[in-house]
This record gives sequence, C-alpha cells and structure tokens, in this order.
Amino acid sequence: MRMTDLIGKKRDGGALSRDEIRWMIEGYTKGDIPDYQMSAMCMAIYYQGMDSEETYELTMAMLDSGDKIDLSGVAGVKADKHSTGGVGDKTSLVLCPMVAACGVHMAKLSGRGLGHTGGTIDKLESFPGFSTAIAEDAFIRQVNEVGFAIAGQTAELCPADKKLYALRDVTATVASRPLIVSSILCKKLAAGADVIVLDVKTGSGAFMQTEEAAFDLAKGLTEVGRRAGKKVVAVVTDMDEPLGNAVGNALEVKEALAALRGEYKGDLLELCLTLGTQILREGGVAKDDGEARQMLEHAIESGAALEKFAAFVTAQGGDAAAVYDPALLPEAPVKLEVPATDGGWVKRIHAEDVGLTSMRLGGGRAAKDDVIDLAVGVVLHKKVGDTVAAGESLGTIHARTGEAAKEAADMLRACFEIGPEKVERAPFIKGVVR
Amino acid sequence: MRMTDLIGKKRDGGALSRDEIRWMIEGYTKGDIPDYQMSAMCMAIYYQGMDSEETYELTMAMLDSGDKIDLSGVAGVKADKHSTGGVGDKTSLVLCPMVAACGVHMAKLSGRGLGHTGGTIDKLESFPGFSTAIAEDAFIRQVNEVGFAIAGQTAELCPADKKLYALRDVTATVASRPLIVSSILCKKLAAGADVIVLDVKTGSGAFMQTEEAAFDLAKGLTEVGRRAGKKVVAVVTDMDEPLGNAVGNALEVKEALAALRGEYKGDLLELCLTLGTQILREGGVAKDDGEARQMLEHAIESGAALEKFAAFVTAQGGDAAAVYDPALLPEAPVKLEVPATDGGWVKRIHAEDVGLTSMRLGGGRAAKDDVIDLAVGVVLHKKVGDTVAAGESLGTIHARTGEAAKEAADMLRACFEIGPEKVERAPFIKGVVR
Repeated sequence: MRMTDLIGKKRDGGALSRDEIRWMIEGYTKGDIPDYQMSAMCMAIYYQGMDSEETYELTMAMLDSGDKIDLSGVAGVKADKHSTGGVGDKTSLVLCPMVAACGVHMAKLSGRGLGHTGGTIDKLESFPGFSTAIAEDAFIRQVNEVGFAIAGQTAELCPADKKLYALRDVTATVASRPLIVSSILCKKLAAGADVIVLDVKTGSGAFMQTEEAAFDLAKGLTEVGRRAGKKVVAVVTDMDEPLGNAVGNALEVKEALAALRGEYKGDLLELCLTLGTQILREGGVAKDDGEARQMLEHAIESGAALEKFAAFVTAQGGDAAAVYDPALLPEAPVKLEVPATDGGWVKRIHAEDVGLTSMRLGGGRAAKDDVIDLAVGVVLHKKVGDTVAAGESLGTIHARTGEAAKEAADMLRACFEIGPEKVERAPFIKGVVR
Repeated sequence: MRMTDLIGKKRDGGALSRDEIRWMIEGYTKGDIPDYQMSAMCMAIYYQGMDSEETYELTMAMLDSGDKIDLSGVAGVKADKHSTGGVGDKTSLVLCPMVAACGVHMAKLSGRGLGHTGGTIDKLESFPGFSTAIAEDAFIRQVNEVGFAIAGQTAELCPADKKLYALRDVTATVASRPLIVSSILCKKLAAGADVIVLDVKTGSGAFMQTEEAAFDLAKGLTEVGRRAGKKVVAVVTDMDEPLGNAVGNALEVKEALAALRGEYKGDLLELCLTLGTQILREGGVAKDDGEARQMLEHAIESGAALEKFAAFVTAQGGDAAAVYDPALLPEAPVKLEVPATDGGWVKRIHAEDVGLTSMRLGGGRAAKDDVIDLAVGVVLHKKVGDTVAAGESLGTIHARTGEAAKEAADMLRACFEIGPEKVERAPFIKGVVR
C-alpha cells in the first residue's frame, strides 16, 4: 500500500477500505507516514468527506492506537458526557452529582487544557487538597462507592488522535465532520462508558456555527457511536452567549454549587436536566423522559446531588467545607461593576470575547505551563433577551488589580450587543438526536 | 501572517494576494513553513484552483526563489521549447538545428531525469566526447556562433519549484492546473528566452489525458507567460502512441538524424515543423505561418539543419562523424523482430508501456545513479491506423542479451491494440493556443 495512492483515491471521491484506514492510522501513529502526507489526506477528506462506514473504521483505528480504560469493575451502568466546548461550561460539575444521585455511575476523565478558563480539573482545584491524580483501582472504587469520579488522564488513550488533532489544528483541516466525529468518539470509546451523551454547541460562540452543521455532526456522532455498540445521544444546544452567568474557575464552581442547591434556574440547569434525562433513560433507570426529569429535579430539591458533590470532593482529597460555604472558595480582591452605556435589549453576548476577557484577567492558559488565577473572571448580570437601562450593570469583573479590572471592563462592555428592539430569546435546547 | 490562515482562506475558495503568495513561497523555500502545511495548501489549491492573477504571482515568486540565466549577451531573438513529456520525445534534437538554421537562437538547458529513456543530455552522449558541462560564457558564445547550445543545468533555478514538486509528487497534488502552470513557467522564465513554445501532450500516454484538460493547461500557460512579458505559444499534440518510431537513446538520435536528413516524414517532423513555425513567427523572422514553414522545410532540404547539428556536436566536444554516418552510433548486439499474433488495424499503442519496455531493456533510469545503456530500445514498424498482417513485425527490439530481448518482445506485443475494424488516425496536432 502507498499513502500517495490512498490520498489520490480520497481526492477523487473514493471510499477507503477498513484495511486502508487501519494501515494509514497505524503507519501515521508509528511515524512511518509523514505529516505532509497525512495533512494532504485530511484536506482531501475535508472536501470529499467519508461515509459512515469509513468514519466508523477511522474511529475504531484511532481507538485501537492506544490504551483503553477497563470499567468492568464498576457495577451497573456507566455513563460519560462530552461537550464540543464553550465559554462558561461547568456542566460536568452539576451533571455528574445529579446523575450519580439517581443511580447511574459516571467515570469521567478530564484535562486541564488551554483556553479561556482552565479545564474541569483546574476548576475543582478551587477546593484545597483536591486531586485528580487517582490510580485506576482507586478510581473504580470511588465510582462504585460515591457514584462518580473525575480523574486526570494518565493512560495513553488514542495517541493517533492526539497526533492527528495537532496536525489538523495547523493545516486548516479541523472543521471536517468525519474527522471531528472520529476524534470525539475514539476518546469516549476508550474511556469505557456504556452510555455517552454529547453536548453539541451551535451558534456564533461555537465550533459549529450553523444549526444545520451542528445537527449534521450530532447525527454522525450517534450513528458511529451506536455502530460501536454504545448508547449514544447528542443534544444540540445554543452557544450564542456564554453558558450560565459565570466565566472563571472558582466563579464557575460557585455557580455550579448554586445550581446544585436549587438556587440557580437558567440555561446551565436546563442543559444538565436535558443531558441527565438522556443518561437516565438510556441507562434504564427511568422508563421515560418525564420520569427521568422528575428524578433529577428531586435530586436537587432533596439535597442528594449536593451531598454527592461533597462526598466526591472529600473522596478525592479535597476540603468539602466550601461546598456548603462557597465564601471559602478563592475570591479576587478587586470587584468592578460594568455599567451599560445605552439602554435597550441584549441582542447578543459574544461568548468568545467574554472568554478572552476572563483569560486576560489571568483565568485561562495561553501556554501549557501558564499558572491560572482561580479567583478571577467575569459574572454576567444580563443575558440575551434581558432589558438593560443605561448605567445598569452588565456584569462584575473579578480581578487581581484595579488596572486589570478596568481593562477587562472595557473588554466586557464590547462583548454586548444592545439594541432598541425587543429581543426574543431563541430556544436554548435545539434538539435531541439519538 | 500565519500559514494556517492562508490555507483556510484558500480552502474556502478565497484568492491569495501577491504578498501572501510571496510570503508563503519564501517561507517554504527557507524551511520556515513546514511540508505538512504546504501539502494541505496544495490540496486546497487542487480543489479550489487559482485565478490567473494568483497563478502569475505564484510563478513569479517561484522564479524569484533562485538564480536566473542572463541571455543578454546573445544577439537577436532567443527561443526555448518545453514539452510536458512523452515517450519517444526527441523533438529538441530536430527542432533546435532547424530553428537555428533559420536564424533564431536557441539556448536550452536540459537534464538527465528519470524515466523510460534518458533525458536529452543522455541521448546526446551517444556522440563520443560530447559534453553539456559548459560554463555560462562559453554557452553564450556558442549560441551566438552556432545558433544553439544545450547545457546541463548548473545554476540553481527555482529551488522553490524543486522542493514543491517533490512534495506534490508524494501527496497526490501534481494534477492541479495552477501548480502545473507555475512549475513549468517559472523554470522557462528563469532560463531567459524571449519566445517560448510549449508542447502540451494529450491522450492516454500523456499527463493531461483529455483534450479539454490539455487545452485548459495550454491557455493557462500562454496567459501567465504573456503576462510575464514573454511570447508564449502552446501546441496541443496527440500522445495516444509514442512520438516517432524509436524509443531508446541512440535509436532516437538516429531517428532525429533521419528527420534532419529529410528521410523521415512522420509525426515527429510534423511536430517540429509546427513548433518551429511558432518560433519563427513569434521571433519575427517569418511574416506568417506559411513563410515560416517554408523556411523550416528548406533548412532540411538544403542540409543546413543537419550542418547546424554537426556544428553543435563539435562545439560541445563531440565527434560529429556519426552525424553523417549514424552506423557509428552505439548499437545493441541483439535484434529481435516482434511478429503480430493477429492481423487487423492498429487501434492504439500504449505509449507508457512501450516506455517501460525500453526501460526494462536498460534504456532508462529508475534511480538517479542508474547507468543507462545507450544502445538498447525499441523501434516500432507500425503506428496507429496502420494495417498489420498476422506474423508481420510490429517492431524491433534492440537488446543487450537474447533473454532480455525475448522478455521485451512479449512486453511490446502487449502494447499493441489491434482490431478487425479500419481505424482512422486522429489529427496529430490538436491545436495551437497563443
């Protein structure tokens, strides 16, 4: 087999066979196939696509390139969740304890990552002593006992994907459905869960900017995931503004705790209820969506979800006092309100730019070794569809210094599009694909 | 500027600016832009194309990546010729002396190259002592005195093209019009001639398999070439069978000498008359095509072209005796006729496979350091449209050993498609684009 011939075949719209795909992924992972051939292949795939057979084979070949997590030691149904990424996304912190309180186990691997805020791991380090460095047997034990665990990734899952993603990132070949599907799914399959819910974001702040593209991706994900023997559901959700109101590590933890206490009722909660419903139904612990939603709401009202969260923090070595007293979480010394210049209706809040504001304050990482300031960030007081009066606060900046706060205030003000006409908020949940 | 952004722009169908193209080619030549980004760009160009402005800028950027030949020391009009490549192509050996005899100077750079037979340089080494290693001043002097010279390339012309072509070759991105146009033209522009004629082959044995693709390429070449200030004409010619009858180094030289003596009247001569006509007309030494053709025919009839060839061989250190006595050229010890199995009309002669037959006999190079056997090869006795009787010879194999000859005979027989219906030969010259 010659890689040049495979590139030519795909270039002309041909379908690659299982053997060809396996040969290519194995060769690329080992370094036998050079980056310059793989990038030309990715661009050919960008234009010609891959059918569902090819996408499945690509996913499985990338899955088989590395280690797999063995969750057979976990009793009952194991669920996992993935989001295509968004600003202010603290979903895992709310969803995992809710679902665990309803009897479905969640065994999540998470990362630190680069970006506007830290990853889930960074956010959780707001609790003193908390660690995600857990050995595999302790991880399994905790999932069985507490109902969920969130560990840092140590095993080498899908090295092919890691290498390929880095290549796609610098060759303008990220935005290809089969490449996105296989990249997301291979890692989820390697993580070992039976039920996988996927949060596919759409809108100006998301990777899939149109609803059509988001639904197309959602269909690809569920199709290939089901073919791989997993119960996969994708939920398409709006990302025309940040999720929830808080952007910043400890600030997001506080918002998640508010949701678990039943004090927060916005889009974040709606998302967690929708994702949780899919998990409970697919996991067989609820007979239908109505029952599932009731169970999840009850987990919050009864305090069971918050208790699960506290048990989880304790199990991973953290001080759970802050779960019940969020004032103990890291807090920034400077707080600055951002008054609106003009009144009207909020038409849009540029999510990406809100994220950059938090990052500029020190809440995110531009390079791998950057140290994150857990306390800083932004809390929005207005969301799309809200009215605002001139001089009324759009949000609060949480900063390390007064100077940084002022700069961030200007940045945040520019994130808002405010107009004189009444704005109807579009539905937040666009649809469920299964 | 970021290469990823430029790839994305082209991927989405945008046009690259002059500055972007120059930045990209300079960066790639220096090694600042890695192969894996350039190959993704080439694949994006493969699908999205380039407009004539972009193609021109790409050509000029590649031209400026290296040295240029200064032909200002040559008096009068300087012409050059390029062929997109074919089997049995000994055109330069006939065309250069014909044109020089009519008063237009030709200063050609040539290579050895890989392939079915050697390059023009290898073929000319059939004359003992002949050398193409000429210093630039001697080269200019010879062009002025003899009318033409063929030198091996020593200056580093278009290193960007060299690097890019090698990359395209292994990433299935060769067959892209703007990339082909810029690759051909940058080298011709660097070689310094005023008049450039291009022989664009079409048909099963050619790179451009359809006439449409060939004319499309021809238009791109003339458009960009004229924009660069050169008089460029492209001739689209048939390559559904080898050019002429001989394939093999010394065998091709013999055929070229026969043409110069006026003893050969086939497609090779027709091609040289057509290309030569363009050169004389564009070079301003003939007022129209009719006059140009008459001058070229006279150059053969009068013996002037053959004399030019002898003077050329002598000037470059070769023994010109063989020009007048071709029996002195290298000759293979074994000759084997290849009788036809069935009679009928010759429908097609697979040019590529005839080339492989010659290569298998030792007449070509698979790797750079392979030594070529100048004497071996194939002489066809039948061309497309000819009738053939069962048992009649299709061609003669010239081989080093009897065993090699037998193997080659089987290969040659398989190159012929012979059918029971009368075959009309399609016109050899498909058209002239200027």
